[in-house]
Amino acid sequence: MKTDPRCIPCFFQQAINLSKIMKLDENILKKILKETGLIINDITFEETPAEIGRRVYSMISQITGVEDPYKSLKRESIETALGLYPDLKEKVENSNDKLLSGIKYAVAGNIIDFGVGKEFDIHDEIDKAATKQFAIFDYPEFKESLINADSILYIADNAGESVFDRLLIEQLHKPVLYVVREKPIINDLTYEDAVASGIPDHIKIISSGVTAPGTILKLCSDEFIEIYNNAEMIISKGQGNYEGLSGEPGNIFFLLKAKCECVSEKLNVPLGSLILKKSE
Amino acid sequence: MKTDPRCIPCFFQQAINLSKIMKLDENILKKILKETGLIINDITFEETPAEIGRRVYSMISQITGVEDPYKSLKRESIETALGLYPDLKEKVENSNDKLLSGIKYAVAGNIIDFGVGKEFDIHDEIDKAATKQFAIFDYPEFKESLINADSILYIADNAGESVFDRLLIEQLHKPVLYVVREKPIINDLTYEDAVASGIPDHIKIISSGVTAPGTILKLCSDEFIEIYNNAEMIISKGQGNYEGLSGEPGNIFFLLKAKCECVSEKLNVPLGSLILKKSE
Repeated sequence: MKTDPRCIPCFFQQAINLSKIMKLDENILKKILKETGLIINDITFEETPAEIGRRVYSMISQITGVEDPYKSLKRESIETALGLYPDLKEKVENSNDKLLSGIKYAVAGNIIDFGVGKEFDIHDEIDKAATKQFAIFDYPEFKESLINADSILYIADNAGESVFDRLLIEQLHKPVLYVVREKPIINDLTYEDAVASGIPDHIKIISSGVTAPGTILKLCSDEFIEIYNNAEMIISKGQGNYEGLSGEPGNIFFLLKAKCECVSEKLNVPLGSLILKKSE
Repeated sequence: MKTDPRCIPCFFQQAINLSKIMKLDENILKKILKETGLIINDITFEETPAEIGRRVYSMISQITGVEDPYKSLKRESIETALGLYPDLKEKVENSNDKLLSGIKYAVAGNIIDFGVGKEFDIHDEIDKAATKQFAIFDYPEFKESLINADSILYIADNAGESVFDRLLIEQLHKPVLYVVREKPIINDLTYEDAVASGIPDHIKIISSGVTAPGTILKLCSDEFIEIYNNAEMIISKGQGNYEGLSGEPGNIFFLLKAKCECVSEKLNVPLGSLILKKSE
């Protein structure tokens, strides 16, 4: 998915949000916004939003000298989610359709996102999760692929959301490779965060090699590309991965909340919709 | 009022909004956004938002070859407002405090603004005008200044709003100099628009000499500055004029709706508040 003109104000807004979180001096923020202006002048709009996001965050890291500004917020998200986990685990185990219940909580967790710049309330999202309808719901295809696949490639999105991914992974009953980002970017999941989220030992955590907030195949490691090409079933969480992987080959199931106008327009659903969509 | 970091996403959003109104090809919009990036890289944040707005709109005019993209929308706003005028005029004349009633409709008209990028409903605003409270209400000072002033300098804001200004001007019962922008910029009022709004013949319409969407004294004509310096009472409509004139000398009454976070924060009022504020 290429960058839309409407993404541009969003990059600046993200820089402003980040500066608040980092409690940056206003003069540093002004410098960051001016540098973001230069980056925008340099783009072609052929890039995915995640590629531009990577350039902006990398510039901010260089200016501030901070590599992982969301570190403590990521830890808080994970702690909050771990606190909710036992109760939700029980709800999943007691539900009529455990797999569906796992899917619903996994997508509810996708609300945890500091990149989109909107306030979120994970408790509210969890309350709604059991009853909210999906706008696109390729569940029959999902179940069929799951039966036929020997293993699943599960591409994670954000820290905290990862704890909710566990609820789904536990209902897959297949070997899972859980994919994280190579380096900290926004609140996207890294290896360290995945471990802190309590991903079970028998689940192998691997890196895509990408340092952008999304899975962009041309930026992935050769090792990951080989695994990706051989995957029988891929679960792709969140917008950043959808932006990178929509249009790419593979038996992909996109599981996400459509949080911005451009993504919801591309999916032809109302803003805020829940999506379980098989790739075309 | 200097440009706030939060103004930056807004400049890009304004360019996007304008491109929709102009039905621009997406490639032209992309070029405009890249050029806006260069402008942002070049600013110092010491400018008022109106000065940067002027640079962005001037670049868009150069790229598109269109000098007054809001021309037909301005005409529509004026026509809509003229349709409402007779009824509102009657309401003002039948009210207990005609001057206050004129002030209320004049500020209700300030909702007509294509620069802020929010949807607005003038009918809804008019309905609320009679009852909505002002967050800052220097009405006693306003009345006292009005009694003492031999004439009023009334600095207009947007086209359409100008018709509502008439309702107030008619209750001032003093000679009024009505100030418009030198050239078309967003939907700000020009001489031509003021005439189309039915500003009465005995009201002298003058230009500030400014081509930005606000009154920035250092960009005003010498002729206007002389008039400004000698003004006994100034009514400044809208955010753009407030941004330019807050902190400047003069017996100014700012009459506006606080439509953006930065302005409402500076005035220490909730977003959307109505303001009648004497300069300090």
